[in-house]
Amino acid sequence: MRQVQICEVGPRDGLQNAKQLMPTETKKAWISALAAAGLNEIEVGSFVPPKLIPAMADTGEIVKHALAIPGLKVVALAPNVKGFERAREAGAHKITFPVSASHQHSVSNVRMTPDQMVEEVRKAAQMRGAQGPEIEGAVSTAFGCTMQGNVPEDEVVRIAVKLAEFCDCVALADTVGYANPVQVKRVFRRVKQEIGDKLEGAHFHNTRGLGLANALAAWEEGVRSFDSSMGGLGGCPFAPGASGNVITEDLVFMFESMGVSTGIDFDKLLAARKIMHGGVPDEPLYGHMALAGLPKGFRAAA
Amino acid sequence: MRQVQICEVGPRDGLQNAKQLMPTETKKAWISALAAAGLNEIEVGSFVPPKLIPAMADTGEIVKHALAIPGLKVVALAPNVKGFERAREAGAHKITFPVSASHQHSVSNVRMTPDQMVEEVRKAAQMRGAQGPEIEGAVSTAFGCTMQGNVPEDEVVRIAVKLAEFCDCVALADTVGYANPVQVKRVFRRVKQEIGDKLEGAHFHNTRGLGLANALAAWEEGVRSFDSSMGGLGGCPFAPGASGNVITEDLVFMFESMGVSTGIDFDKLLAARKIMHGGVPDEPLYGHMALAGLPKGFRAAA
Repeated sequence: MRQVQICEVGPRDGLQNAKQLMPTETKKAWISALAAAGLNEIEVGSFVPPKLIPAMADTGEIVKHALAIPGLKVVALAPNVKGFERAREAGAHKITFPVSASHQHSVSNVRMTPDQMVEEVRKAAQMRGAQGPEIEGAVSTAFGCTMQGNVPEDEVVRIAVKLAEFCDCVALADTVGYANPVQVKRVFRRVKQEIGDKLEGAHFHNTRGLGLANALAAWEEGVRSFDSSMGGLGGCPFAPGASGNVITEDLVFMFESMGVSTGIDFDKLLAARKIMHGGVPDEPLYGHMALAGLPKGFRAAA
Repeated sequence: MRQVQICEVGPRDGLQNAKQLMPTETKKAWISALAAAGLNEIEVGSFVPPKLIPAMADTGEIVKHALAIPGLKVVALAPNVKGFERAREAGAHKITFPVSASHQHSVSNVRMTPDQMVEEVRKAAQMRGAQGPEIEGAVSTAFGCTMQGNVPEDEVVRIAVKLAEFCDCVALADTVGYANPVQVKRVFRRVKQEIGDKLEGAHFHNTRGLGLANALAAWEEGVRSFDSSMGGLGGCPFAPGASGNVITEDLVFMFESMGVSTGIDFDKLLAARKIMHGGVPDEPLYGHMALAGLPKGFRAAA
């Protein structure tokens, strides 16, 4: 029925960059509301040291809550093997590893080169066992980097090919909102030629307003799996005032208006937005659809 | 050099829907700053009765100011023959007529059916003489209407074909922000098949956040002429809190980052934004590029 798969990453990528802490009980209520709206894949948190990112300190409890929601694929981020072990013990269905294609960003962020980080993911893949969780390798800063600027496309392809050796799926992420539609098509096409259907997800930020245009470009290139964040939550630590991820509400509206079914209900989505807003009331809320409402006579995709 | 033509419509479409009046001297300074940034086509105002739209009462004076700017194509809107005569006397280079494809919107807005409005434009075309201004027929509500909802595509094509008989160029306008990329491609393709190169402009609103995605879709369909408004000025009278036209700054960034030259300078564009904001300080300012800044190492299209 769903013609495109949307993974809500607000509880992880959004809250991680928010200035306010969302109470654990509100997180749970928000995740339940998201699932009730039809979001059947949610990145609920990150297994990083709580000292580094206090907003993710309750991820274990949040994963437990999410696992009790029927039909929901529970995704968690791990930055290393230690995080992977915690995520696996918590029972996450899918564990995503960010691997920065930018050498400078990788060393600064995780104190490993991209190749060292690839080996870290390989270790996790070797550890997981037959019944282990799905592992995603997400090539971050795949379209540019605030530190080193340009990220060579050859390097993006090289990292993606390595990850595809042992990951179940590979995603490309525009971590800092540098991508443009022409580049998106070119890079996804190049990676697809190398790793075929192992290339699954697209993760865009709306930092410079091109989030939906980039999602459209990726869709036209055959991508059917997108990350997004309710209300564009989280902003960008490198660009004060700029919004965060591509906005779930607007992304859903774009696809549904194009006749592409997302499986998501608008009214329930807006109800979840209210819960989210209640949990971090000082965070700016982005998104046009929530303000403008649906067009008169609008019919969602069948 | 320019691979895409952007027409700034903020002084008309933006200010017409703004709650504040911009002082005439600020309008002049803003238009000069826009032209200095490389916008060589600006819709500077509308020749409507000042009682109906007080913000457009100074359009004659504004046209005069704009005509003194070297290399600038001065565009004005006319809703009828009377407005056309005033625009022609003022010396506008290009006069644009909105012709609503929605019967209900047309009757409510100008007390004429779409076909009566087409005849009004025909009269203007017959009056203009050999040295007269360029005439554009803009099919408005071409992608949907807040009053009647769906606008049949056959009707959009029929109106466009009629206008192409005597107009120099035809544009399609998503007046209320209902369009989606798939529809944009389909409708532009259908109209293009009928009237060929007479189909020129695309006018999108960002009411539901799809402005840039729709512009990308139109670009991919061969459209090379776009309206936009600085800061998304103007909002939407039918959707409180929703932004107005597609945002000039973000549209320019999208094209330039795709390697498509707009002829527009970013720094000077942001300087013009400051002048605009100073003239209507209570109006909400939209646009991501202005907040986030250019990517590190960014190079504009050659």
